[in-house]
Amino acid sequence: MIGRRFLLCFAFFAVASAVSLPDSQHLPRPLILEYPTEKWFDEEQEVVSRCTTWRFAVEANNLNPWRTIPAECAEYVRDYMTGRGYSLDLELVAAEAGAFARTVESKDDGKDVWVFDVDETLLSNLPYYKERGYGLELFDKHEFGIWVEKAMAPAIDSSKKLYEQVQYLGFKVFLLTGRSESHRGVTEVNLLEAGFRNWDKLILRGADDHGKPATEYKSEKREELVKEGYRIVGNSGDQWSDLLGSSISNRSFKLPNPMLQQKTFHCGALIPHPF
Amino acid sequence: MIGRRFLLCFAFFAVASAVSLPDSQHLPRPLILEYPTEKWFDEEQEVVSRCTTWRFAVEANNLNPWRTIPAECAEYVRDYMTGRGYSLDLELVAAEAGAFARTVESKDDGKDVWVFDVDETLLSNLPYYKERGYGLELFDKHEFGIWVEKAMAPAIDSSKKLYEQVQYLGFKVFLLTGRSESHRGVTEVNLLEAGFRNWDKLILRGADDHGKPATEYKSEKREELVKEGYRIVGNSGDQWSDLLGSSISNRSFKLPNPMLQQKTFHCGALIPHPF
Repeated sequence: MIGRRFLLCFAFFAVASAVSLPDSQHLPRPLILEYPTEKWFDEEQEVVSRCTTWRFAVEANNLNPWRTIPAECAEYVRDYMTGRGYSLDLELVAAEAGAFARTVESKDDGKDVWVFDVDETLLSNLPYYKERGYGLELFDKHEFGIWVEKAMAPAIDSSKKLYEQVQYLGFKVFLLTGRSESHRGVTEVNLLEAGFRNWDKLILRGADDHGKPATEYKSEKREELVKEGYRIVGNSGDQWSDLLGSSISNRSFKLPNPMLQQKTFHCGALIPHPF
Repeated sequence: MIGRRFLLCFAFFAVASAVSLPDSQHLPRPLILEYPTEKWFDEEQEVVSRCTTWRFAVEANNLNPWRTIPAECAEYVRDYMTGRGYSLDLELVAAEAGAFARTVESKDDGKDVWVFDVDETLLSNLPYYKERGYGLELFDKHEFGIWVEKAMAPAIDSSKKLYEQVQYLGFKVFLLTGRSESHRGVTEVNLLEAGFRNWDKLILRGADDHGKPATEYKSEKREELVKEGYRIVGNSGDQWSDLLGSSISNRSFKLPNPMLQQKTFHCGALIPHPF
């Protein structure tokens, strides 16, 4: 199985490294970095290395649009999401956000704001994704809605600590989510059950927002906040579409999520995975 | 040695997880994710896990300002930079950039542009960083200048393929570097010796640009290009300061570099490493 995977990986990279310049091999190459190759045939390590590379490309927003995780990385993503990797990444991003928040001199006018996304930022839908291969199955909006209505998503502990910390520092807390207005009630119940208290606004997609790309919808909502005189000091989200666009915060914090990608740009076709 | 490191790591994370809420342990916590802990005492694996988390935070632009890599990650960063990890990451980002470039319908007016940074994007300074612990020593502008004057930096092979590919597709290639105008000659010699040909502009820091943060300098230069009617379709750089700011490209591609960080924001104090 791993052997077949390796062949697939190898075949892709052979194609990728040829790129599409017909005569690139005839160009002068006086100075090329050389990398060690002694581990080339450790197949299991090779899959881990390639999937780590893929995950970093996700988190640095380098990937072209994709719909499901690469089949070859199914075990890798599962191990990451359920193991130390994901929890360590969550802890560090919360610690850095908290360290930054403590350096901000908050004004006493109640206009300093920290924006949080909800899913995979404050609440974890791991129980839902566990049943669907951690991103291996196509995201199904309808099925996800049924899960949301159960109001059973647990808190992400490190985000909850940050949430409480920024409240303690005097920031207003605004929750800006791609969930629909029709899920306001269950979302409030879930947040309360998971231990979140005293948010200042919970903004959901209204009737006019459906069909808008996430970046556009969230930028518009942030713009409205800025027009109301709020200063968006920090923003925490697991999707680049939570953080990019207009009226962005002074500092953005990208939480890890290799399971799902929302488009952050208009251009660029859906391109097969590099595996 | 590893044992001492582990104690240091453990001590930090104990502090980090306490955050600064004085009574956070008394808050209700009905639903908290639980993570497996069976590997907690595999010390070497623990250092690798924590340094991977640190590297992820670098590449996702989550870290507060830092000057040198964490001492505990010295071996990890060296192994990454000289091993398969760095080369795989470089190959994937170039492959994704190339795949995106092929989807762009270039107009025939010569105004479609791809912007490349130079250091750690087209040229590799690994021979320089090798002598300085791969980011373990404080960056010394004067010493780096002496290295630059040798014009001996090798090409990053995957970037060279992308460079040739976007030229082949009809884009203009503009190089936008933080190097000084006084290094124009040696930079041109180095680029030519490394096999780069026919760039359309090489923009370096002029007398007016010295002292400006990289994000500001590069944004100003991109703005000038846009005013001249160019469309910045793609941008490749190893620093977030190459990619963020104003007049940004349609798509940005962040090349890996855990050795060095240029500030991308004005706010936020220098905060000790989380190790």
